[in-house]
Amino acid sequence: MTNTHGPSKEAPLTDDDVAAPNHAERARTLVDGERTGALGTLTDDGFPYPSYVTFALHEANPVFLVSTMASHTQNLQGDGRASLLVSEDVADDPLANGRVTLVGRCQPTTTTAAREAFLARHPEAGYYVDFKDFGFYELTVERIRYIGGYGRMSWVEADDWRLASPDPVAAGAKGIVDHMNEDHADALVAYARAFTRATAAEEVTMSGVDRHGFELSVITDRGPRPARIAFDAPLESAGEARSAMVALLKRARAQLEE
Amino acid sequence: MTNTHGPSKEAPLTDDDVAAPNHAERARTLVDGERTGALGTLTDDGFPYPSYVTFALHEANPVFLVSTMASHTQNLQGDGRASLLVSEDVADDPLANGRVTLVGRCQPTTTTAAREAFLARHPEAGYYVDFKDFGFYELTVERIRYIGGYGRMSWVEADDWRLASPDPVAAGAKGIVDHMNEDHADALVAYARAFTRATAAEEVTMSGVDRHGFELSVITDRGPRPARIAFDAPLESAGEARSAMVALLKRARAQLEE
Repeated sequence: MTNTHGPSKEAPLTDDDVAAPNHAERARTLVDGERTGALGTLTDDGFPYPSYVTFALHEANPVFLVSTMASHTQNLQGDGRASLLVSEDVADDPLANGRVTLVGRCQPTTTTAAREAFLARHPEAGYYVDFKDFGFYELTVERIRYIGGYGRMSWVEADDWRLASPDPVAAGAKGIVDHMNEDHADALVAYARAFTRATAAEEVTMSGVDRHGFELSVITDRGPRPARIAFDAPLESAGEARSAMVALLKRARAQLEE
Repeated sequence: MTNTHGPSKEAPLTDDDVAAPNHAERARTLVDGERTGALGTLTDDGFPYPSYVTFALHEANPVFLVSTMASHTQNLQGDGRASLLVSEDVADDPLANGRVTLVGRCQPTTTTAAREAFLARHPEAGYYVDFKDFGFYELTVERIRYIGGYGRMSWVEADDWRLASPDPVAAGAKGIVDHMNEDHADALVAYARAFTRATAAEEVTMSGVDRHGFELSVITDRGPRPARIAFDAPLESAGEARSAMVALLKRARAQLEE
């Protein structure tokens, strides 16, 4: 189901079929990039009760280190049904932020793998991990709701969630975007003129990058409009972005000189 | 119930009875300072389902503007039991952040006051407030869980929650703290020497301020230790902080010269 409300989106300057992450990959990347969320549990009289938690992903399931004294732990002991909401905090407009709700059953776990996954993400927890009233819980994800901002939302299949990998470019994305906007305005203009419908573009900024390609915001007579450009092949790391963008720039310039 | 785990807290350099906000006031101030939260609702098969929402307080109840297409709205139509988690995002250590969970029943509201409270906090929502598939819901708060970080937590009585006012100094607090740390290190040392057990303090930073007083972090031989100093009377605005701190400084200096 698509929310057609919210700030209107200008029509993109590129086609919809440019390679892009699917919702499973976007959701997995978002959750992988955060360390805290809202854990929903059930009170003993059946109210939904969200509380603030730290988490880490162990394979595709969130793992928590909780105190037996905490309300959410007492709730889970009564009923294992639970959900974790994980939200980005990047956009000025709150509803433009992506978020994911993972629904399932949450149970104690004593596996070494779950413990190690949590401590790798939260080294500060080494201080209390062995206190006897703390223990690990794991949420076995059954349903996944992804909302990527206005007009981008769906239920993701559990199998797709489990198989998706977080985008390896995500951790380096901000650095790449900042670098391109600061030092390579000319390249951005060339991409826009060669690969989008804005063949006379003069002002272009980069707004995002992922393993499949990157996003531009092109200033047109009718205001900024988005465009997406695919890499020749998906990247395996942020380090590969430079050569992929140089290759596209050569092609763009060759095409513009024809 | 007190969580005695988490990073150990050095013993304060002042007594526990220095005037300070109670938990109802701290919770109300925290919620008043945020615009987004995690709304917990119940799925049709009884799972707790937290989702990301914008909210505003109308009197002491959160108000939401939601789409009938959204999962949380469909959940609320099935069962009105709900909770809102509101979290700060100020501390580097996630579990040192304050957070509040408001538990109650959430129902549609068509009052003008609720609408106005929401739009005053979210003017951007004027764009879609009158779309026919959007409507307001209000959560009537019955139970309040406050966690102010490590070792500061309680259930707040609903009457206390309703009667509490948000701290009028909160919006100006960061500016006051930054100003004191940047320009008045000598005053901070004088407060610490005169009003705390660190009578030979040499390095002092301010870490917080509220209507009742302010908090210092004093470097001692055993590391940083907290101290709290009360104003002579509670402030009614951040603008009153300057004269209150000057009055305390005069008293501190007079006392140190004795």
